[in-house]
Amino acid sequence: MDKVSATGTYLVGTARMDALRQAAERGERVRLHGAVHAIRNMGGFSFVLIRIPDGVVQCVMDDSLMTVEPILTEECCIEAEGQTRIDERAPGGLEIVLDTVRVLSRPHTVMPVAVNKWKMGMALETELALRPITLRNTRERAVFRIQAEIARGFRDFLYEQGFVEIHTPKIVSASAEGGANVFRLDYFGRKAYLAQSPQFYKQTMVGVYERVFEVGSVFRAEKHNTARHLNEYVSLDFEMAYIRDFTDICEMETAMLRFVFDRLKTVCGDAVRTMGVDLPVIGEIPMVRFDEAKRLVSEAYNRKIRDPYDLEPEEEVLIGRYFKETYDSDFVFVTHYPSKKRPFYAMDDPADPRFTLSFDLLFRGMEVTTGGQRIHDYEEQVAKMRVKNLDPEDFTSYLMIHKHGMPPHGGLGVGLERLCMKLFDVPNVRRVSLFPRDLNRLEP
Amino acid sequence: MDKVSATGTYLVGTARMDALRQAAERGERVRLHGAVHAIRNMGGFSFVLIRIPDGVVQCVMDDSLMTVEPILTEECCIEAEGQTRIDERAPGGLEIVLDTVRVLSRPHTVMPVAVNKWKMGMALETELALRPITLRNTRERAVFRIQAEIARGFRDFLYEQGFVEIHTPKIVSASAEGGANVFRLDYFGRKAYLAQSPQFYKQTMVGVYERVFEVGSVFRAEKHNTARHLNEYVSLDFEMAYIRDFTDICEMETAMLRFVFDRLKTVCGDAVRTMGVDLPVIGEIPMVRFDEAKRLVSEAYNRKIRDPYDLEPEEEVLIGRYFKETYDSDFVFVTHYPSKKRPFYAMDDPADPRFTLSFDLLFRGMEVTTGGQRIHDYEEQVAKMRVKNLDPEDFTSYLMIHKHGMPPHGGLGVGLERLCMKLFDVPNVRRVSLFPRDLNRLEP
Repeated sequence: MDKVSATGTYLVGTARMDALRQAAERGERVRLHGAVHAIRNMGGFSFVLIRIPDGVVQCVMDDSLMTVEPILTEECCIEAEGQTRIDERAPGGLEIVLDTVRVLSRPHTVMPVAVNKWKMGMALETELALRPITLRNTRERAVFRIQAEIARGFRDFLYEQGFVEIHTPKIVSASAEGGANVFRLDYFGRKAYLAQSPQFYKQTMVGVYERVFEVGSVFRAEKHNTARHLNEYVSLDFEMAYIRDFTDICEMETAMLRFVFDRLKTVCGDAVRTMGVDLPVIGEIPMVRFDEAKRLVSEAYNRKIRDPYDLEPEEEVLIGRYFKETYDSDFVFVTHYPSKKRPFYAMDDPADPRFTLSFDLLFRGMEVTTGGQRIHDYEEQVAKMRVKNLDPEDFTSYLMIHKHGMPPHGGLGVGLERLCMKLFDVPNVRRVSLFPRDLNRLEP
Repeated sequence: MDKVSATGTYLVGTARMDALRQAAERGERVRLHGAVHAIRNMGGFSFVLIRIPDGVVQCVMDDSLMTVEPILTEECCIEAEGQTRIDERAPGGLEIVLDTVRVLSRPHTVMPVAVNKWKMGMALETELALRPITLRNTRERAVFRIQAEIARGFRDFLYEQGFVEIHTPKIVSASAEGGANVFRLDYFGRKAYLAQSPQFYKQTMVGVYERVFEVGSVFRAEKHNTARHLNEYVSLDFEMAYIRDFTDICEMETAMLRFVFDRLKTVCGDAVRTMGVDLPVIGEIPMVRFDEAKRLVSEAYNRKIRDPYDLEPEEEVLIGRYFKETYDSDFVFVTHYPSKKRPFYAMDDPADPRFTLSFDLLFRGMEVTTGGQRIHDYEEQVAKMRVKNLDPEDFTSYLMIHKHGMPPHGGLGVGLERLCMKLFDVPNVRRVSLFPRDLNRLEP
């Protein structure tokens, strides 16, 4: 609420549910604006539900008011005034008896779907095609409100830990992760790519600020249509110098996740309750070597190991299950992935160079983070590029940092939508991507 | 500093200049890590300058130490221990007498340029080619530290004003700004574009949360090589609903800029002093109509009006000068741009539809923001698309929001690098872009 008008009415800038509740406790009149989320005619009067940024306000409107203004319809945007009163049965525990309504805008056509229902229960394809309007649904709003607060929490935690934010280019000349999964574009007659990660740049920047982070879009031209892949997603990346080993990164992530999830309860408790989110309680996150994890689930669930170099999605599910059953943990760090499957910048384990000093974090049986220690020594990096059949000449800019001195360092990338997918326990990551991009989807 | 060791020595996690100064005031021993920024041999002892995240610490090291450890060189990353003492002549007002030094990593080759000089004074081309290492220079670090704090301030201000952060796709099927300046890419056999702005999506999201913002990369395939254009830059975007008119957006921006610049003094005062930044003092920002601004500078500086529909860069400079001279303001809102030059979503002025309810913000004679009120009515939007020779069928997803009801709304986009260009008073925007992308530059 921004100020009291001459008539003693509160003018609500962007109304919030708790401010309206407080007004009701004081028995005040309020003025607010919002969209008409739903109208229920009760004969003689109507319940008008007004959608405001963080909730829906129950208002009572006498039918006589309908004759003063042209008839109200759903999705009209209005400015309204009235007397608040406590009503514990109503959302937010209050109700407003309207006496003035002014229509600011009107829809051209009625909604094709009932976005004002509690659960829309639509097929994924339909929901995504109608996303620009289905997002007005209360539960959809809660999902992306929580997602916004996760990104904010990530940053707030890292600021406290001395990290500096960076903004790195998304159009790049070389691909960090290698492989075919990269979007190509014509850049004024030259070949360019869309960045699969800010990898090279965040490493470069630890040479500058020691600790850096970026929240930004990354692009993967993966040609398979799965429930857990997006072709564009939001990556929460951080990179830190002067680590003793990669477990420093795991510790930082553990503390970050603890901070982020704890914070959700206070900053968007309503949204958390709306979604019935089962917030993970994070103690110490168990850690298991890649090969050991494979063996454990193979034995525990009588499953044959087929690919010794990578985890199949089903194996991730079983590892998640095993550590939930055995340690009651929603998370598990799987460490020491095979060198064969990790990028050229991953540091090999000196004790056994077939493995890397790297890790994935599984959350409820799915990889949500990849991280590890990076090679900082120039000759070591050049040698590993050669082993991977890469030409160091193609990485001159990147190798500049190793050549002229780099601290021991490492970092990670968290997939924001993946994290939300497991947090909201939805079967398809598209549900928690605002406007998902996949093999067949370029809009909305 | 994170904890006291058993020997009473402070272990520094990520050391900060002010924490070291406090240690010096208490006469404590400290342990810290960092890169050797410079070594000055004084005969018998050396000054070793250690680069930490927010400064450079002057250390004194007896030559005898050099014989214990292999010889130190610049850009070695080290862990060091010693006794602090106050020294007002040294950076940060302290000095450390080292007694233990451990080398964590060594460079392969000496720096090709003296990044440890106060001003590197390099040609732009050379500096940008060597960016991965020239960023280690004290002044370069200050530039991008301040830039990070501007983005942070933008977000912090908007959070307080009830804005919700969104992450919108950068790969899109239609271009918001129109024109030829769009990067094309092949998206699994379909034509796709890189987003020139989050325009459609942020408008969509004001229908959901009323107030939204995004900090992200945008892409412009402009083929001219000027000192003020980048082909990829960071855009600070916000969009807000229930505005009375576009001046609400100008007011929000004014308050945001005031907050951001005020905040810099406290959160990175050192960096501000390092760069000798002349922080603008923002009172009320003067506002002038586009045609009036053209007339004013034409008369005041005896300059012929050549293009009646757009501002030439030289005109922007003169408008900036005029409002500096006349109103002592570093900023000026230029309003009511011609409809001809504004995109199809700009709302025309009902009083004179040749002009739009839009504005640019000039900062020290250069456009740093474009904003305005958007069309929210479906039929009005369809009609304007037709006038602009656009087929509404090509914008079905976007028009869904107008069709089903939108509040009056508007917003803006601030170019982060442009803002910094004028803040740091540099003649080329590339100097303040971390890894700039231009017609000829795809790396580093």
